[in-house]
Amino acid sequence: MTTLAIGVIGCGYWGPNLIRNFALNEKVKVKYVCDISRDRMDLITRTYPTIKGIDDYHEVLQDKEIDAVAIATPVGSHFEIGHQALLHGKHVLMEKPMASSSKEADQLVNLAQSKGLVLMVDHVFVYTGAVRKIKELVRAGEIGDLLYYDGVRINLGQFQRDVNVIWDLAPHDFSIMGFVLDRFPKSVHALGSSHVKAGMENTAYVTCRFSGSLMAHFHFNWLSPVKIRRTLIGGTKKMIIYDDLDPVEKVKVYDRGVDLSPDPQEIHKTLISYRTGDVWAPVIDMTEGLKRVCDDFLDSILMKKAPLSDGIAGYRVVRMLEAAQESLISGDFVDIPE
Amino acid sequence: MTTLAIGVIGCGYWGPNLIRNFALNEKVKVKYVCDISRDRMDLITRTYPTIKGIDDYHEVLQDKEIDAVAIATPVGSHFEIGHQALLHGKHVLMEKPMASSSKEADQLVNLAQSKGLVLMVDHVFVYTGAVRKIKELVRAGEIGDLLYYDGVRINLGQFQRDVNVIWDLAPHDFSIMGFVLDRFPKSVHALGSSHVKAGMENTAYVTCRFSGSLMAHFHFNWLSPVKIRRTLIGGTKKMIIYDDLDPVEKVKVYDRGVDLSPDPQEIHKTLISYRTGDVWAPVIDMTEGLKRVCDDFLDSILMKKAPLSDGIAGYRVVRMLEAAQESLISGDFVDIPE
Amino acid sequence: MTTLAIGVIGCGYWGPNLIRNFALNEKVKVKYVCDISRDRMDLITRTYPTIKGIDDYHEVLQDKEIDAVAIATPVGSHFEIGHQALLHGKHVLMEKPMASSSKEADQLVNLAQSKGLVLMVDHVFVYTGAVRKIKELVRAGEIGDLLYYDGVRINLGQFQRDVNVIWDLAPHDFSIMGFVLDRFPKSVHALGSSHVKAGMENTAYVTCRFSGSLMAHFHFNWLSPVKIRRTLIGGTKKMIIYDDLDPVEKVKVYDRGVDLSPDPQEIHKTLISYRTGDVWAPVIDMTEGLKRVCDDFLDSILMKKAPLSDGIAGYRVVRMLEAAQESLISGDFVDIPE
Amino acid sequence: MTTLAIGVIGCGYWGPNLIRNFALNEKVKVKYVCDISRDRMDLITRTYPTIKGIDDYHEVLQDKEIDAVAIATPVGSHFEIGHQALLHGKHVLMEKPMASSSKEADQLVNLAQSKGLVLMVDHVFVYTGAVRKIKELVRAGEIGDLLYYDGVRINLGQFQRDVNVIWDLAPHDFSIMGFVLDRFPKSVHALGSSHVKAGMENTAYVTCRFSGSLMAHFHFNWLSPVKIRRTLIGGTKKMIIYDDLDPVEKVKVYDRGVDLSPDPQEIHKTLISYRTGDVWAPVIDMTEGLKRVCDDFLDSILMKKAPLSDGIAGYRVVRMLEAAQESLISGDFVDIPE
Repeated sequence: MTTLAIGVIGCGYWGPNLIRNFALNEKVKVKYVCDISRDRMDLITRTYPTIKGIDDYHEVLQDKEIDAVAIATPVGSHFEIGHQALLHGKHVLMEKPMASSSKEADQLVNLAQSKGLVLMVDHVFVYTGAVRKIKELVRAGEIGDLLYYDGVRINLGQFQRDVNVIWDLAPHDFSIMGFVLDRFPKSVHALGSSHVKAGMENTAYVTCRFSGSLMAHFHFNWLSPVKIRRTLIGGTKKMIIYDDLDPVEKVKVYDRGVDLSPDPQEIHKTLISYRTGDVWAPVIDMTEGLKRVCDDFLDSILMKKAPLSDGIAGYRVVRMLEAAQESLISGDFVDIPE
Repeated sequence: MTTLAIGVIGCGYWGPNLIRNFALNEKVKVKYVCDISRDRMDLITRTYPTIKGIDDYHEVLQDKEIDAVAIATPVGSHFEIGHQALLHGKHVLMEKPMASSSKEADQLVNLAQSKGLVLMVDHVFVYTGAVRKIKELVRAGEIGDLLYYDGVRINLGQFQRDVNVIWDLAPHDFSIMGFVLDRFPKSVHALGSSHVKAGMENTAYVTCRFSGSLMAHFHFNWLSPVKIRRTLIGGTKKMIIYDDLDPVEKVKVYDRGVDLSPDPQEIHKTLISYRTGDVWAPVIDMTEGLKRVCDDFLDSILMKKAPLSDGIAGYRVVRMLEAAQESLISGDFVDIPE
Repeated sequence: MTTLAIGVIGCGYWGPNLIRNFALNEKVKVKYVCDISRDRMDLITRTYPTIKGIDDYHEVLQDKEIDAVAIATPVGSHFEIGHQALLHGKHVLMEKPMASSSKEADQLVNLAQSKGLVLMVDHVFVYTGAVRKIKELVRAGEIGDLLYYDGVRINLGQFQRDVNVIWDLAPHDFSIMGFVLDRFPKSVHALGSSHVKAGMENTAYVTCRFSGSLMAHFHFNWLSPVKIRRTLIGGTKKMIIYDDLDPVEKVKVYDRGVDLSPDPQEIHKTLISYRTGDVWAPVIDMTEGLKRVCDDFLDSILMKKAPLSDGIAGYRVVRMLEAAQESLISGDFVDIPE
Repeated sequence: MTTLAIGVIGCGYWGPNLIRNFALNEKVKVKYVCDISRDRMDLITRTYPTIKGIDDYHEVLQDKEIDAVAIATPVGSHFEIGHQALLHGKHVLMEKPMASSSKEADQLVNLAQSKGLVLMVDHVFVYTGAVRKIKELVRAGEIGDLLYYDGVRINLGQFQRDVNVIWDLAPHDFSIMGFVLDRFPKSVHALGSSHVKAGMENTAYVTCRFSGSLMAHFHFNWLSPVKIRRTLIGGTKKMIIYDDLDPVEKVKVYDRGVDLSPDPQEIHKTLISYRTGDVWAPVIDMTEGLKRVCDDFLDSILMKKAPLSDGIAGYRVVRMLEAAQESLISGDFVDIPE
């Protein structure tokens, strides 16, 4: 079996998780970890003495042995590093959001395509057993027609230095929703407040309109005293609650809803009745999502296939973030052309 | 002790609760129950044979022995019945929302005032131990400056025939917020969806802007598979979670938040640090809120005092509902002049 | 339809609930409430002016119009009042436990039988949707062979004046277990502590051995800071958790367990593997159990049938309580002859 | 600073955690990992290429550079390996339970003492922030006099091959209780069932009697569909609930209980009243317990001090396990002489 060589650029919060997963994967050898902080690198190289710590990522890109890089730096540098990496012929796994603007994201997608390289975005939740189970249920029509999608992702900090709470937390929900619904919103609306640092929203509510009556809404907050990560998905047949913090019953399917029937007594009226049936929590594959991310990235390179979470998926998330940001300022719904 | 005589008009969902509480109260005698449904009245008179069931509320108003009426009919009839009752010199306890428009609410307030009658609105949550405890904490400055207020009130049905989900559920939250914060929003914004009956929103998100950076947001939903009634109140010192469905720890106070301090190394920067301290659930008086509502109404009549939840409080709630309704249509924030 | 006449003897904690349910039942008319406390009776007669309050229960028994009595007095008086009632030809609904000794319980059962009267014990949980659902699952073989039964019923007070925590709380669990398993233990063991009043256990652990490897165990406690009412039922196929305090998912069925298979490599060994499948919470009929108790009692009289929770069921519970009490003193397992 | 050299013997379930913690600790260098399974060792040496994997532990003991060993093999081999290690002059960190009999445990304690070596048992919960906080509260008298101690530790598997559920799970609770109460039981009682493998209990209830009215009780179960790790500690002043699975509020202190006062009306009677006050969840230090275990072991060697969880503590746990095992067979309480 070919063994690929990878360099991980950025080892702050998420980089060490990438390294841990790549280190346990037999398809790849982690050759470099790159960071501007010597302390952070030392923590890695102490545990993994075979990984070389360097502070200039260009060195990684110039190494001909390197097949791929994983980029886990702050958002502001994603485009520049990703662009350089693709130009040097490296396959790229990019942290989310993949770029600071949809224009940049688009450029990366085109560059990767023209050079025949894998460009993948680490939408890690899309690779978890819980989200895959929900996708499976929605696709099989178990839920019926979708009515609403309501996500809450709140906790206390970490305040990011360079992006607001939407750019920090929404990529998770936008990527999950895109994957599960396989639909893209027509317009996006956002409201926010900055309590800590002017112009840097720490609390925000984002609403998406789709064609039809489907509406999605999200609550993002860095100032909540408790951690909540819960999504409600309402359908005409059934409803789903996805609670990512429940250690066992992450996905619950409720046979509950409203049934409409013509009123036998008054022709033009409709009778509303409630359906309260069983609750079902399907068993969830608990494999770490990031393990699957790393696998999909390496397999995509080795088998020359497109990853599940490809550059297009990453572009769409950035496009929605951009629209939300625009709405934060204008106060209006911002249309997203198809 | 004077014993008052009361008639309860409307005994659908809430009326029987009013009757049960008045029946146990020694300051009052329930003389009439009035409803257009004979079945509903029979259920009452079977249990309380001394209460007379009638189907025309005018009969109650014309009875000189009657001091007061409690009106628990559908919203659309509140104004008409309340207006008539005040004209007949009866003290009025009104279900929420007190009227279908702020103009009507204003008229009722003025009429009651000019006739020297008690006009009270049954904002029942304002009388619960949990909400009183929160008010006490906020007023004492325990929470610090208020940053955000986030309420979720969702469940499966009951779909109302004559009002949408905002008019049905928001009076609870608007009255609680008004009482706790003692502040009134500058503008209101609402988004909603109608999945069941065109033009009758069953899912809605309402946002209130206040002077300063305080923002309030609410999620109302009749189509949720689970029942949630939870409010987060974030302050600079502490944060509160009010979970009305927790049988014991309804109010939790979190010594958590963000502290800002000047960066000693870089003058123009600010250091952000997290504070994660104890959680405290104060003991809550579990007296039924409605018992206190009935007491306050009767005491206000007997002692010629203003009730805690008076007509003005009721007017304000209607004013906010009206603004939300307007925003649902226009899509814009609707200002509320002071 | 014949309308029966009933007298309710004892209206402390539970009596008012009996009266409320009988008052709403069209098959019966509550003629008397009897208690030695005038205050307690006044609370009743104020709400139900057609019920006559008296302080001597003999008066009830001598009234020829009275068909039946419900006895909700302290345990110590159950036998005497029940005995007198049966002698006077009244059908009897008895609070649990039905008597202070199995000898007394046996006497009541025989007397009722010889006089052709209904003798029923108010094992109210047996009539709830949750327990009926569990019974249905167990009987249908969904759970497989039963391995263990573990019940916890703890809270803060009410300390009873005349019985210990086992006599107070165990009748619930013993009656549920008897109904669900349809098996009776071979021997009973109990350990307890008295922290408040010497000789009056407020904390106790009771263990029951059945034929085969089935073991049941209960934790009863009046001194717990929190209220827990949870039963685990382990079977070879599935497992059940019954949490009476969960407002919605009272019964959960877990497709979890251990599978044994012969080890293909070593003939005499067995391989153990874990099965972690779906969790399923069937919809539960939420009708108040006591409503069904009253119905079953009245139907048993009217249709001359045996109630679900008859005197024999009541006797068995007392027999187990007696054995537990004996074990508390001796420290040994106490056998219960068939 | 002196850097110690350690070998980890046994790397099945727990060994890798020891290695991970020692690897991050600057006071020590992990020189060997020793296991009979080549696969398990490969997993380690792949991540930590500087650690040498060997299959014979004697090699570790004969290496003069080695100061200490950590023994994480199955229980049956603890004594033999520990004994050999001490004879070779190595400091020993032993997994719990430290031996299969109190006689063996006693021998290890004496041997370590006579040779001036550190003998420590990895009672890891004793080193967690939650248990330390409870200890602090109990010691400070916040709880008052102790009334009862009730522990539940149940989940689905892992079935151990060589010990029953008491020997597997009780060491956690016995060590926590010993640390928190600083008292040792007078006698131990145990009941159990073997559903899977004859003679190997997978469900057990253990009761401990102390001097006075304090009683402790534990439920251990490998066949529970859900994981519960909860301890109730009742005192005359306050009560504690320790829920190890709660991610945040692991320790809750309830200002609840029963107050006794003389009855002013009847001299020989006592009035019982309930106290329901606030609930308080103190902030808990979330440092990994095992990190502190490793630190304490290394510090004990370096500073020639006794560790918190020394051989005596380990001996006591084994003594209780032994008594429980004896009771399982005899059915009686087994006394533990002081």
